[in-house]
Amino acid sequence: MRTVVPFDPRNPNSRLSPVLDDEQRRSFAAAMLADVLDAVRGAGGDPTILATAPLDGDVDAPVSVDDRSLSEAVQDEIDAGLPVAVVMADLALTTPEAVGRLFDAGGSVALAPGTAGGTNALVVREPGFTVDYHGASFRDHLVAAERADLDVSVVDSFQLAVDVDDESDLVDVLVHGDGRARDWLADAGYGLTVRDGEPVIEPNA
Amino acid sequence: MRTVVPFDPRNPNSRLSPVLDDEQRRSFAAAMLADVLDAVRGAGGDPTILATAPLDGDVDAPVSVDDRSLSEAVQDEIDAGLPVAVVMADLALTTPEAVGRLFDAGGSVALAPGTAGGTNALVVREPGFTVDYHGASFRDHLVAAERADLDVSVVDSFQLAVDVDDESDLVDVLVHGDGRARDWLADAGYGLTVRDGEPVIEPNA
Repeated sequence: MRTVVPFDPRNPNSRLSPVLDDEQRRSFAAAMLADVLDAVRGAGGDPTILATAPLDGDVDAPVSVDDRSLSEAVQDEIDAGLPVAVVMADLALTTPEAVGRLFDAGGSVALAPGTAGGTNALVVREPGFTVDYHGASFRDHLVAAERADLDVSVVDSFQLAVDVDDESDLVDVLVHGDGRARDWLADAGYGLTVRDGEPVIEPNA
Repeated sequence: MRTVVPFDPRNPNSRLSPVLDDEQRRSFAAAMLADVLDAVRGAGGDPTILATAPLDGDVDAPVSVDDRSLSEAVQDEIDAGLPVAVVMADLALTTPEAVGRLFDAGGSVALAPGTAGGTNALVVREPGFTVDYHGASFRDHLVAAERADLDVSVVDSFQLAVDVDDESDLVDVLVHGDGRARDWLADAGYGLTVRDGEPVIEPNA
């Protein structure tokens, strides 16, 4: 399946700035992107990176640059041909199995929720669907599908639901990840410790 | 399947105290518990509440009171007979389908991760497994299973992964919930608004 992977190389994962500096965040984001490309290919997908700016380093997939908003750029990709999948670049836990469940989900539209109201991955098989990543996008996508008279399936996956937004998400990368993103964190010296009974990220672990 | 649902009626969901007062948190916790009991029964399970103190209100399940630590109390339930499932009481998004995937998972031990390194639900089918909910419990449970030479399956479920810890989790209850917990929040006046492009909880919405 043609799979679009939106990626912002300019200021990725800005909410990680308390723990990672600019260069670290760019390097970590590239590691997550490579893991997602692997998972997409492992599920039989054909990934294209939809980037907001040209990429500096080498990446192992075609890159299309579009500096408009995420929603506008993704909508053009959907309108360019169906079926198409859209999988976010910061799903550091995702696996070929999880992406495979997305590809195999029924429905004219398949939605994989992200935590805190988002949509981390989707498949569109029939025309008429409008994406809107602003706000509570999962709810808005349900409404958009209903308006277009498209049936929806929901992909209930933890691996697709965890996008790396902030420090607490790095705990899950260390606990569950087994790819470049996890290795990047470990190589940068990050480990887990326990504070008040809860695991937290610790530098120089 | 016999299913233990640990529940702390004394000071539930303390990290919600910035938004809900003590009485509200107890009432909301009871709503989540009732949703979880429904989901367990909907999947063919036979739930028992494992409470840290006697419950005030009526609940629709047998209650066993044990004021020791969560890990000690749950371990006794596991040692009392197999197979047994353990499902946390604050999984406000869970559905009979998600609990059914837990019950149907293979392996001597099945683990459903929670966000931030936790274990939100599990099934134990063979003797020798030791629970430890302190710290990064998911990782510790993988180690405990390996030590006991028990094979593990992981249940990749968003609905089982979201436990209601803090305010941001309430966004997911409003977006994805369809039970008493969602209704409780809506009746208490909570709705969603968008701040900096992200959905957040708003009182008196």
